[in-house]
Amino acid sequence: MALLKRRLIDAREEFQANGRGLVRRMLASAGDSGGAPSREEEHALAAVTANGGGAALRGEQLRGGMVSVEKADGRSRAAGATPLLFIAIFVSVALNVALAHLLHRYASHPAASPDKQHDTCVHPDTSREGEAARVGEPKYRSASAPSTGKPAVTQDSVINLDHGDPTMFEAFWRETGDAAEIVIPGWQTMSYFSDVSNVCWFLEPGFDQQVRRLHRTVGNAAVDGYHVLVGTGSTQLFMAALYALSPPNADGAGEPMSVVSTAPYYSSYPAVTDFLQSGLFRWGGDANSFEGDSYIELVCSPNNPDGAIREAALSSDAGKAVHDLAYYWPQYTPITRRADHDIMLFTVSKSTGHAGTRIGWALVKDREVARRMTKFVELNTIGVSKDSQLRAAKVLKAVSDGYDVDEEDERSSSGARHHRLFDFGRRKMVERWSMLRAAAAASGIFSLPEETTGHCNFGDETAANNPAFAWLRCDREDVEDCAGFLRGHKILTRCGSQFGADRRYVRVSMLDRDDAFDFFVRRLASLK
Amino acid sequence: MALLKRRLIDAREEFQANGRGLVRRMLASAGDSGGAPSREEEHALAAVTANGGGAALRGEQLRGGMVSVEKADGRSRAAGATPLLFIAIFVSVALNVALAHLLHRYASHPAASPDKQHDTCVHPDTSREGEAARVGEPKYRSASAPSTGKPAVTQDSVINLDHGDPTMFEAFWRETGDAAEIVIPGWQTMSYFSDVSNVCWFLEPGFDQQVRRLHRTVGNAAVDGYHVLVGTGSTQLFMAALYALSPPNADGAGEPMSVVSTAPYYSSYPAVTDFLQSGLFRWGGDANSFEGDSYIELVCSPNNPDGAIREAALSSDAGKAVHDLAYYWPQYTPITRRADHDIMLFTVSKSTGHAGTRIGWALVKDREVARRMTKFVELNTIGVSKDSQLRAAKVLKAVSDGYDVDEEDERSSSGARHHRLFDFGRRKMVERWSMLRAAAAASGIFSLPEETTGHCNFGDETAANNPAFAWLRCDREDVEDCAGFLRGHKILTRCGSQFGADRRYVRVSMLDRDDAFDFFVRRLASLK
Repeated sequence: MALLKRRLIDAREEFQANGRGLVRRMLASAGDSGGAPSREEEHALAAVTANGGGAALRGEQLRGGMVSVEKADGRSRAAGATPLLFIAIFVSVALNVALAHLLHRYASHPAASPDKQHDTCVHPDTSREGEAARVGEPKYRSASAPSTGKPAVTQDSVINLDHGDPTMFEAFWRETGDAAEIVIPGWQTMSYFSDVSNVCWFLEPGFDQQVRRLHRTVGNAAVDGYHVLVGTGSTQLFMAALYALSPPNADGAGEPMSVVSTAPYYSSYPAVTDFLQSGLFRWGGDANSFEGDSYIELVCSPNNPDGAIREAALSSDAGKAVHDLAYYWPQYTPITRRADHDIMLFTVSKSTGHAGTRIGWALVKDREVARRMTKFVELNTIGVSKDSQLRAAKVLKAVSDGYDVDEEDERSSSGARHHRLFDFGRRKMVERWSMLRAAAAASGIFSLPEETTGHCNFGDETAANNPAFAWLRCDREDVEDCAGFLRGHKILTRCGSQFGADRRYVRVSMLDRDDAFDFFVRRLASLK
Repeated sequence: MALLKRRLIDAREEFQANGRGLVRRMLASAGDSGGAPSREEEHALAAVTANGGGAALRGEQLRGGMVSVEKADGRSRAAGATPLLFIAIFVSVALNVALAHLLHRYASHPAASPDKQHDTCVHPDTSREGEAARVGEPKYRSASAPSTGKPAVTQDSVINLDHGDPTMFEAFWRETGDAAEIVIPGWQTMSYFSDVSNVCWFLEPGFDQQVRRLHRTVGNAAVDGYHVLVGTGSTQLFMAALYALSPPNADGAGEPMSVVSTAPYYSSYPAVTDFLQSGLFRWGGDANSFEGDSYIELVCSPNNPDGAIREAALSSDAGKAVHDLAYYWPQYTPITRRADHDIMLFTVSKSTGHAGTRIGWALVKDREVARRMTKFVELNTIGVSKDSQLRAAKVLKAVSDGYDVDEEDERSSSGARHHRLFDFGRRKMVERWSMLRAAAAASGIFSLPEETTGHCNFGDETAANNPAFAWLRCDREDVEDCAGFLRGHKILTRCGSQFGADRRYVRVSMLDRDDAFDFFVRRLASLK
């Protein structure tokens, strides 16, 4: 088995080193024309690549891979040479590459790619998680049904906790009946415009209203005197804030504005700031080592990845702060004060769990900043999906209704009467953090941030900080790369280095479905 | 009246020149403290600004403005001076500013702003179109209802045809019953992921399927061997294509890639290319005057703004083309061939009229280009609204069903049986172009592009080109700025200079609602 594994890894490495060259050479040696690949060859190559990238552990998928290769071959010209040899070599190579991918996936950690900041920071390399091979034309397995997210996990699955995919909340929303259901007729909200009298002219008034109402209900942020802006997730509003706060630099001669954040910082901040190499702003690293007066400081509180409560580290007249309050909700942390910063970012992804809806919002004090942020969204995407805004409004309404006695009495046929999102969320997070701490203790080789508590004004009780991510440190002397170590045990996490921190740390999502979380803690407890 | 108008314009100009200074001075002279404005003053100032920017013609809205000012004043400190004088002066200034805005709006043309490419190219300055005053906290006039787009027009309204807001199609979708209606339960599509086996991991399989089916039905673009990518409108995919086709320029030392298009070109191209001052790509102007081998050429066909059928103007091994086929649908032009370019962009905004849904798609041949475009969308917005993808899939399905006899027979309770979008669209466009040509002829001072025809493979008939925009030229010798001239007659259009063309040209949307279009042609016919 070790020999086979070695051979397959060799094949994989050669394949990686030569791109498609290996397969192309095999095709050539089988007697096909040597020069530029034919269209049929390209199809076959694409099939192999897709299989290699997309194959998973199950036998039927390997068989699927073979069928796909045979089909590709079936389309190829009989090049006058030895077709049987051709098929045999081709299938062998395809299988080796597919298997090598699988072993590679479970046994090693991909080295930093040249495109690292783009490839590893925001989402896992999803081509590794494929269920089925696919070449241009997808195979329509129940294609009309809405998607369900990542595939279900089993005892032996790779558990992917790299992203903060908030599917934990599905269980809550399944219980709420039609309280958060939305119906959109074919003719509705077809215009670009939502409210031409608003600075944010593409903002649905109903969403604006429900955002304000929810903040008043929870008490986590001031809304009076603020503009509400909507974005395609808070990521778009983060870029919008950088655009709005950077000087115009019209002649391109000035220096870009420095964008900084205290380490460990959210891994998307550097990636999103720099991917277009804007002349307006540029990633400046850890706020604590920044020197200068002019900057944009990103203050994430509770902090992604470590859950710490943060204040701005820098202070200067020429400096600006953007407060990312995505996790400042009662399920994650005690609500100790009503935040009232100049720019505050929120998202339904973390507050209610609706990541697929891609709706974020900003509370912005200054009208000119609000206008420029709106301009960014206008130039970037000409507004924000109204369908998702309407859905988000309905979802936020259901959350507020759960805590609003008057509204509750008024409604006649609500399924949400006894459904209180933050109660559900806090109960789950307390339970999960308790399980995780027990697993880390049982293992003996991991440590976690200390639990902190505070008085939560929302629940009027003392509550613990239960972050949406675990900032896990592997204390074993011989493990310098915790993410690689965990990957070897089929647990995908995000490496500390992506957050400007040590590779002994990883960030682990605490928001996945119950089964994935359960497998994760059990597996973690068994590691010594 | 002329005197009043002059006085109000003076007030407006002084207000513009001094920002908030004028009102602040009035407040100071009324006895309030002279230094930094108090919080109450800021509220009052904001109220005036909002009124000035948002007031419209109707009396009740002016009254609304007064109420708002009184309210703001009611919150202010009694500064020990003369509160009645304070109120009187304040209300007077507020009214003057509001009225000046109105007159200004109907009598003049705003000069190019310093931020012109951002302010005028993509959408009209919507603050000028306001229905009601608004200060941070919106007034919830039936706020929970979905928005309906721009306000209804009357005989005397300003007709805004600057944007291609495709509300003409609402009438069609109102007739289709539940064929394009969508229901989304609260727990659905909460994950970031749609299909982890697809290069475009956030693409809903059902949307992918309906995109391919519709292209096969219409015959306007090849889909076999193509990747389908989804974007937040085609604007996001346009940026994604620039990102994917530009060399990485990792050290920032290289020259940005030149982005060009034959004039007249879509006004968004330069604005969207340059607003972040990317080091990867830069607007290079008219393709016909470009010199060099390395470029990205944008080929819009039928062309926005003039409806011309376009081919790439440049050819070079190092050059790339992006084909923007937003208008290559049977309602606008005969479908003469199945397009099979490397990158083709489409959008529901123009194909079905669902601009508010913000869904575009790209058909991409090369896997690596598809991967990099996907990476752009991931970094920009971490995917695309699944709610809108599901809705768009349902809408596209309803369109294809209308032309698919088999499907039609299978469906039991469809309201879409006799509803054929492209038949509706072509009928409307033929009618509107006929009306427009008659109006231009009646006026005698306007000219339009010649009508062209071709054999449409979709309808198997000879059909005319009926562009989504009219590229209108004012032939009157003394009118050098056609947009300004039309604005003087309460018709808002987009100035030719924004498309790299002469200011005697304007672009006029042909896709607005019937009433707006009717008022437009009637008004146009009356101009001499």
